Amino acid sequence: MQQVNPARFMDMLQRLATFGAVPGGGVAREALTISELEARRWLCSRFSAPHYRWYMDDAANLFLRRAGLADALTPVMTGSHIDTQPVGGWLDGAYGVVAGMELFLALDDAGIRTQRPLELVIWTNEEGSRFSPGAMGSSAFADPTRLADFLPVTDAGGERFEQARDAARQATPAATSRALGRPVHAYLEAHIEQGPVLEDGGFQLGIVTGIQGVRWFEISVTGVSAHAGTTPLAARHDALMSAAQLISRLGEMAAARQDPALRFTVGRLEVSPGSINTIADRVTFTIDLRHPEEAVLAEMEALIRQTVEAKTGACGYALRSLMRRPPTRFDKAVIETVAAAVSATGAPACRLGSGAFHDAMYLADVCPTAMLFVPSHKGISHNPAEDTAEADLVAGVRALAGAVITLATPANALQSTPN
Amino acid sequence: MQQVNPARFMDMLQRLATFGAVPGGGVAREALTISELEARRWLCSRFSAPHYRWYMDDAANLFLRRAGLADALTPVMTGSHIDTQPVGGWLDGAYGVVAGMELFLALDDAGIRTQRPLELVIWTNEEGSRFSPGAMGSSAFADPTRLADFLPVTDAGGERFEQARDAARQATPAATSRALGRPVHAYLEAHIEQGPVLEDGGFQLGIVTGIQGVRWFEISVTGVSAHAGTTPLAARHDALMSAAQLISRLGEMAAARQDPALRFTVGRLEVSPGSINTIADRVTFTIDLRHPEEAVLAEMEALIRQTVEAKTGACGYALRSLMRRPPTRFDKAVIETVAAAVSATGAPACRLGSGAFHDAMYLADVCPTAMLFVPSHKGISHNPAEDTAEADLVAGVRALAGAVITLATPANALQSTPN
Repeated sequence: MQQVNPARFMDMLQRLATFGAVPGGGVAREALTISELEARRWLCSRFSAPHYRWYMDDAANLFLRRAGLADALTPVMTGSHIDTQPVGGWLDGAYGVVAGMELFLALDDAGIRTQRPLELVIWTNEEGSRFSPGAMGSSAFADPTRLADFLPVTDAGGERFEQARDAARQATPAATSRALGRPVHAYLEAHIEQGPVLEDGGFQLGIVTGIQGVRWFEISVTGVSAHAGTTPLAARHDALMSAAQLISRLGEMAAARQDPALRFTVGRLEVSPGSINTIADRVTFTIDLRHPEEAVLAEMEALIRQTVEAKTGACGYALRSLMRRPPTRFDKAVIETVAAAVSATGAPACRLGSGAFHDAMYLADVCPTAMLFVPSHKGISHNPAEDTAEADLVAGVRALAGAVITLATPANALQSTPN
Repeated sequence: MQQVNPARFMDMLQRLATFGAVPGGGVAREALTISELEARRWLCSRFSAPHYRWYMDDAANLFLRRAGLADALTPVMTGSHIDTQPVGGWLDGAYGVVAGMELFLALDDAGIRTQRPLELVIWTNEEGSRFSPGAMGSSAFADPTRLADFLPVTDAGGERFEQARDAARQATPAATSRALGRPVHAYLEAHIEQGPVLEDGGFQLGIVTGIQGVRWFEISVTGVSAHAGTTPLAARHDALMSAAQLISRLGEMAAARQDPALRFTVGRLEVSPGSINTIADRVTFTIDLRHPEEAVLAEMEALIRQTVEAKTGACGYALRSLMRRPPTRFDKAVIETVAAAVSATGAPACRLGSGAFHDAMYLADVCPTAMLFVPSHKGISHNPAEDTAEADLVAGVRALAGAVITLATPANALQSTPN
């Protein structure tokens, strides 16, 4: 699309990165914090023409609807999220949202109104670092009955998701309320790869065929707190020592499989009471387990449970499942639409699976869905060093624009296939 | 001493436990928090007769001076601390302070003025859980040059010790400022044992002959944060996995020595960024190492350093010494004075070393010092379940009173011996 304006697009992307910018680098804009709400208000302020409308649903997902010529048809949706990890990079999520903004402004410049309405969506709490699990917004959109489980979830400071959701509503008066979960013709999400495949292969664009499966667990180890100076080693019920041994064992077990597709991460660990001279009475840690094959996930979960249960020594153990998703296969027709649009840009591209999960994972449950990747420098993400070359970012916007316009034209019927 | 009033003493002890009381049990009264400052104000309000004066020094140590008949003589000092672990018990520290309060009130009832002045002291930040290291107040009293290192120390919320110290001054207008570190004739501290020796032996009182040596370390493990879903196991620099392996190895090493006097504890561990789906880039944890013999401490420290340095894999490691104290031997003459006072109470007693460290450890550097223990139920401390039988608590107050009165009589010259 000729009207895609690289300077305007990069300006908007850099402006979005100022909300929650960390001195020295990185962005701290966790879900529904003041920084994210200010960024949402800024987004709203950019679209005031009469063919735009803002909506917010009961999960605080924010939608910018661009009216279609046949506005009663189901919309083509694009977007992503603008929440970050506690300290994340400037592109994760933000890229897909600003790409959608640029697409809409380019359509305005070109005087194009698509037949189908278009919707740009900002999903709530994709990262899951403030409120667990992640992708709450898209998950509740795909199945509104899930919202009831999310509302009472609290962040580390004790604030409920429900309170944060209500604050988001008040902070965005421009958005009209609407119900969760509406029919969508097709969903296409642009995102940074967050891995090294595209860069290593010299590709500018990636046509994403699916997302690996993921299971999240929380393990609690319960001991007895006691004085570090008076309690003999043999008489201890030391929750931190037991947790360290367990994590160490689980890590060795995962590494021993030598499966290059397996991901096993303990990223969060909390100690109570957390004092130098007191034996810990409670440690809670998380496991993030991923693999493209459901059978491997099931086998690994069985091994983890077995290892946790075998540790019947001085401490108590409890394992809780926080989230699980089987591998996702994207819609063949949407994949081919993306492939054609990518091909039209002339940028070198390949097909690949996603290592990270995305809101598109839940959308794939309810509508034909696919994703488009741009490279991540050295594969780094969830880190202030996250970056992508401008030429790649712009190529992605052009490909997204081409694919969305095709999807929004009713003559191009989607041959939807089951996931 | 006949005038020791068990009901008044227990009332004061229970009243002190209400400052920072946790619903369901335990006391949360970390150093110089609002709860501790309120408790200090309550202490001040109890002593207004003209022979009492309150003082505070530059480390926020609080002194209640009871004028002596020969007030120019150096004082006999008793006391302890009233700060607690994040959630501690009701007796750790508090017992020694309230025992001193009861001693003073009993002397008032008996119309006794000792020759030497008496001072009841509330030391600042003994626990070291809010500001590290512990025993800041008594340490700075014993060597005022240490204060400069303590003032910039921050708590988990970023508040400097200096700010907290200044707030303590403002909160206690009844106390006159005075310089750190003054000559003391003798120091005697009553405390709960925080271990099982007295209870297991059927003793009501313990004459403490010394304190085991202690070394505190902080170890930082530095990795690279990256996305949990996209980064292959073999390509990771996972600070949390490396820390778990290191703690596990150090724990095995300590246990393998099978030395019943050795104490090795990892009580605090912090993870950055601490998100489920991000590989940790930094883990910081502490080691509390104790033993009655300096040679064993030195050997263990060498082993710890060796193990940390050997882990030259994917992550970086740094070891920092936070605090170190050789084993302390108390003053023979004060020990014998305590032994005589204990004997006069008729309570079954024994001599023992202290597993925990105490403010008396630093006082022993500058004046003849000893301690008196009462039993801890099941040896439990730093825990809401911390408890001692009332009869034992009261026997301790009587023994403390007898020993302090003897020490405050100049005819009883101390035959001080080097530590």
